[in-house]
Amino acid sequence: MKNSPHGGDIYSFAKELKIAPKKVIDFSSNINQYRPEISLNFNKLDISKYADIRYTKLKKRLAKKYELKPTNIALFNGASSAIQAILSNVKTTVTIYAPAYGEYKRHAKKVKLIDRFKNLYQEPEKDSFVIFVNPSTPDGNYYDLDRLFEIWDRQNNTVLIDESFLDFTPNSSSFKNSNNLYILKSLTKFYSCAGVRVGIVLSDEKNIKALEKTIPAWNISTYDENYILSALKDKSFEKRTIENLAKDKKRLFKVLKSSKYIKKIYESDANFFLVKLKKIDAKKLQKKCKKQKILIRNCANFDFLDSTHVRFSVRGKKDVKKLAKVLR
Amino acid sequence: MKNSPHGGDIYSFAKELKIAPKKVIDFSSNINQYRPEISLNFNKLDISKYADIRYTKLKKRLAKKYELKPTNIALFNGASSAIQAILSNVKTTVTIYAPAYGEYKRHAKKVKLIDRFKNLYQEPEKDSFVIFVNPSTPDGNYYDLDRLFEIWDRQNNTVLIDESFLDFTPNSSSFKNSNNLYILKSLTKFYSCAGVRVGIVLSDEKNIKALEKTIPAWNISTYDENYILSALKDKSFEKRTIENLAKDKKRLFKVLKSSKYIKKIYESDANFFLVKLKKIDAKKLQKKCKKQKILIRNCANFDFLDSTHVRFSVRGKKDVKKLAKVLR
Repeated sequence: MKNSPHGGDIYSFAKELKIAPKKVIDFSSNINQYRPEISLNFNKLDISKYADIRYTKLKKRLAKKYELKPTNIALFNGASSAIQAILSNVKTTVTIYAPAYGEYKRHAKKVKLIDRFKNLYQEPEKDSFVIFVNPSTPDGNYYDLDRLFEIWDRQNNTVLIDESFLDFTPNSSSFKNSNNLYILKSLTKFYSCAGVRVGIVLSDEKNIKALEKTIPAWNISTYDENYILSALKDKSFEKRTIENLAKDKKRLFKVLKSSKYIKKIYESDANFFLVKLKKIDAKKLQKKCKKQKILIRNCANFDFLDSTHVRFSVRGKKDVKKLAKVLR
Repeated sequence: MKNSPHGGDIYSFAKELKIAPKKVIDFSSNINQYRPEISLNFNKLDISKYADIRYTKLKKRLAKKYELKPTNIALFNGASSAIQAILSNVKTTVTIYAPAYGEYKRHAKKVKLIDRFKNLYQEPEKDSFVIFVNPSTPDGNYYDLDRLFEIWDRQNNTVLIDESFLDFTPNSSSFKNSNNLYILKSLTKFYSCAGVRVGIVLSDEKNIKALEKTIPAWNISTYDENYILSALKDKSFEKRTIENLAKDKKRLFKVLKSSKYIKKIYESDANFFLVKLKKIDAKKLQKKCKKQKILIRNCANFDFLDSTHVRFSVRGKKDVKKLAKVLR
């Protein structure tokens, strides 16, 4: 692919600008700008040995975090890999509440979309496999799923809830021990580690066993396993993030609100804002931003959105100030 | 799984012995006991950013190493993941020259085996997908493939050659730019990094493009990418390994040769030896070894081998001395 269909491609952007990737001011990827304290010395890790093929220690730790059993957990090399593994076994229609993360559509064989902005309570096809991202992307809205679960029950749907951004909200997981429910967790966003590839699927023991039959041997890097274990040791990180995020969101919101280019800011419970533009389209705004080394996410390739939609992730004071100059 | 079907499971072993995993003397996993010099500070790596989704830098470096184009390379989260990706698209019979690495049989749908010890030149089914590991496991024999390639051509086979242990030998790769040839490379064994998950597939541009369509986004850990880049900078590592390995192999060979339990040592061009036992079976010998904290590979679960076959990886003087005591 020439240009990545995802956010966060600072490499092509930097190349075009002839600057180092780390000079890019990246508003396109929705990674937590705060990071957990990592006390581990990665240079001392013994990576010559095979990892525990069962990843016992990591599963145990995650089981504690999610308040369930290690046998309810399957580990994948990133959430995208988990999506592929789950969908490769789905023979029925896949109903995606769209817009949603692009990898769902990519790995599903037979797709139907429900426009969650317009037809949230539309009935999905009976027996179909349902995908709902909560909070959703690229808007960040958290949905109370009670009424939807009633519909899904009635339609005999198997449901996957992607909770990759749930940690940014005060809400609790939709997990329950049921054979027609999968929960997807990505620690990437909240624990600020896009380079670390650990995706987590929670389901009942039988589903997990079936999934594990398809997982290639040793699919988690020893570095990544230890990063997560270490990150989870930082007890104050969650609180720190939530507190700071609230302030940061307010600051960014204010800038977006006062911009002559922005018609609407979507409600967000996550660490980013989707906006609808006016008087300018996404490409033109991207160009303006680019001059200031600012990368933003054009959301035109999301279903039910168009070339007037862009997403901004929450960033620090300095970066937002630079963005403000462009948006004014 | 209770017990791993692979070697290198020092964790269950250590648990049974109530010792720390690092106290295990592991003759079961065939990882290079020498390690490249790593100059990178892993604690300073910025893992909060998404990796370059195309892994441009790593592909470029590997293209140089293998003397081909970056467009001839697909990267996977470990060789096992590459095996799964390739075989999931194979609709024909998969002909495995056995014994071979267990993940091949696991991920193939319709398998036929050829006993390469007894019927090496048996014709595989016409149009079938052929798998040959060279040097082979668990014996380590390097095969001159000229005559086999003639047969495969005649039978119109698509061929995968697994060269995960080739770096231990002076032989060159079977790669050629052809749409019915895949080469699999794992850097794990030679670069002593079982905890690092990078598997490499080499093929013609069209095959690589098709494979990449199936790869989940960001499948390589940033840590792992950088480990490989750093390891490849150690210019004297290959020479160092080859020279030391020759001495180490001689030492281990001598010990095996003089053991009352060993009937036959298979010819090996790699960093391990397969042996056929006498007067004892694999399980009993494992028990004897276990008392000395020594883990060896029972090869009974390999096709065409039985409970009298075990594998020893090449290890240092001190460890071999301990093994010698058990084998005497």
